[in-house]
Amino acid sequence: MKTTLIILGLLFIYSNAALSADSSTPMLVEKQLFTTENFTTVSGETIAKVDVGWESYGTLNAAKDNVILITHYFSGTSHAAGKYSADDALPGYWDVLIGPGKAIDTNKYYVISSDTLVNANWHDPHVITTGPASTNPATGKPYGLDFPVVTISDFVNVQKRLLDSLGIKKLHAVMGASMGSFQALEWAVQYPEQVERLIHVIGAATMDAWTVAALEKWALPIRLDQNWQQGNYYDKERPLDGVAATMLNITQDAMHPIIYNASFADFNVLDQGALKDIRTLPKLSQTLAERAMARAKTQDANHILYLVRASQLFSAGMQGDLKAALKKVQAKTLLLPATNDLLLRPENVRTLHSTMKELGKDVAIAEIEGGWGHLDGLFSIAPKAQLISEFLED
Amino acid sequence: MKTTLIILGLLFIYSNAALSADSSTPMLVEKQLFTTENFTTVSGETIAKVDVGWESYGTLNAAKDNVILITHYFSGTSHAAGKYSADDALPGYWDVLIGPGKAIDTNKYYVISSDTLVNANWHDPHVITTGPASTNPATGKPYGLDFPVVTISDFVNVQKRLLDSLGIKKLHAVMGASMGSFQALEWAVQYPEQVERLIHVIGAATMDAWTVAALEKWALPIRLDQNWQQGNYYDKERPLDGVAATMLNITQDAMHPIIYNASFADFNVLDQGALKDIRTLPKLSQTLAERAMARAKTQDANHILYLVRASQLFSAGMQGDLKAALKKVQAKTLLLPATNDLLLRPENVRTLHSTMKELGKDVAIAEIEGGWGHLDGLFSIAPKAQLISEFLED
Repeated sequence: MKTTLIILGLLFIYSNAALSADSSTPMLVEKQLFTTENFTTVSGETIAKVDVGWESYGTLNAAKDNVILITHYFSGTSHAAGKYSADDALPGYWDVLIGPGKAIDTNKYYVISSDTLVNANWHDPHVITTGPASTNPATGKPYGLDFPVVTISDFVNVQKRLLDSLGIKKLHAVMGASMGSFQALEWAVQYPEQVERLIHVIGAATMDAWTVAALEKWALPIRLDQNWQQGNYYDKERPLDGVAATMLNITQDAMHPIIYNASFADFNVLDQGALKDIRTLPKLSQTLAERAMARAKTQDANHILYLVRASQLFSAGMQGDLKAALKKVQAKTLLLPATNDLLLRPENVRTLHSTMKELGKDVAIAEIEGGWGHLDGLFSIAPKAQLISEFLED
Repeated sequence: MKTTLIILGLLFIYSNAALSADSSTPMLVEKQLFTTENFTTVSGETIAKVDVGWESYGTLNAAKDNVILITHYFSGTSHAAGKYSADDALPGYWDVLIGPGKAIDTNKYYVISSDTLVNANWHDPHVITTGPASTNPATGKPYGLDFPVVTISDFVNVQKRLLDSLGIKKLHAVMGASMGSFQALEWAVQYPEQVERLIHVIGAATMDAWTVAALEKWALPIRLDQNWQQGNYYDKERPLDGVAATMLNITQDAMHPIIYNASFADFNVLDQGALKDIRTLPKLSQTLAERAMARAKTQDANHILYLVRASQLFSAGMQGDLKAALKKVQAKTLLLPATNDLLLRPENVRTLHSTMKELGKDVAIAEIEGGWGHLDGLFSIAPKAQLISEFLED
């Protein structure tokens, strides 16, 4: 069980649902493709053609007013719930919340989720995204670092076009964890009249110097890998060692010592192999390195660099004055930081709460308890199901 | 002032003393050389010749029983107090505590501190150490990775030989911060009859899985740098990019968002350069990278890998049973964790305190408050001067 837990943690993509007993009649979901053209980014460039994958759970009603948009986290995809096939090992990351009769009840709501631009999981066959690994129609080759810098606002604007294409004009709610919370908040700031409810999980309203520096450490190992070649590796060997080191950074930053240490119950500090030869890593480091390499293989290195940059540049409303941006929000808001979050710290969300209160906003806060740290937003959210359900109905 | 603060933080080697007004008549100190031969490590190898630097403050009394040993932290050196010359910009890291009339009163005590084996600051002209960058007498070339793995116990045993050479048989106290606390505790476990007092600052009693994994992240960028060449770079270009990335990791891990964010008062998340081109780092990242590179130039990459390993293998007494090791301690003990320490967390020191209490030890704990995080053990220790002074006199 402990091993299962830590593997889940290290994969960073699955929900507690996988640990629950109910695996009967999984909700089957299908990845769909959305294409849009001439997409102009905040950085002022135009991408000729944008493809992103999306999936949905539940049924869009005739009034098209029962829509809940789920925006995904840094390492995530649009696979928020259900399974692609009945024998999938695990369902989408928030399957514990989303489904028939669950807190986000697909008998009532039409839940939709899309892969972001520059999604990191380029080599995951279920992911469709556009980024530096995509073919630049102007050259017939991958964009590489010629792909424009994209921002959280751009992610939101692609989702906006997807919803427009479906004739959806209002969101009953938008909800996202971590980098997904950035998008959810950005929706409420950019399109205040269209967002009725906002659920902001393990998130932030803006990046501070601390987090920008921490994010840079996720990019550094990739740039150090000699196979990275300034981003021109698409017809060569991939910078997998660098990406694996990045996976190690992300995984530990998203966790907390409580579960981390409990998960390595067989850990022995007096590692004889590591004592005898500097070239032999401690067993723990070897295990982590193997898992990180397995994850690295699903990732595109440049896409990670672009996700780092998009996150580093995030400030709700993308303007100098955060308060002025928050002032625009009309959505009823629920903030769900995780008490033990070491990556996007709950202090900052408490400050966001009081700022929104001061601005007269309809905002509530509740903390997710657990030993996973940042990952509690995925793995320990079940006790907040009732609160979320009531928030959506209110 | 803020710039000064952050530079101090990023250098990670200076004390609050530098910020105080009293720069009159600095205590001048001199680096000395201690050489010992045929040193056998815990890993079972013999190093033909070990050279380490040391310095002292105050005067050894006739009974040789007024000795306080200071053991240094990961990035540190034996320069705990005083200045090498009157015009040095800054004194040693704990100058606020150590000197005539200070808490560790050099009118009364003979304070001694030595550079560890594999000290990272190989290119600092004031540091003398033995490690992979040293010449292997068997080959006439640098050891590289043929240097044996060394442990905290080995650091202590070199210090033991140094003290033996001076005829010192008892320590009035041993005190160290961070990796220095590991050595200080190891002294009290290995040589219980010779250690009367132990002051354990921002430390730990053993490594847990979390910290071993965190330390590995300090080694990774070095191994990724193509100039590292499996440690054989001594007649080639040095792996400075990897070392600089490691410096970034160490610096942030040793800090806390409170001071970090306050130090970058001019930080602007909406960085136009970073928005316009993925190849342009955010200004903050550029600044940090430059500072990290300046620090990297004083370091030897392999030495850092060996320090990481020594730290990863630390468990007081270097045996399976931590309680059995702690049981050996006879020293009156003062534990000084930092409340906001994100690297060696105060929770673990609180557990150490209760374990030692259960074992019937004479142990006290007091927490260092501050916004520096781990670095509070260096920068915010002044309010504990009185407590330390009384502890030493009791």
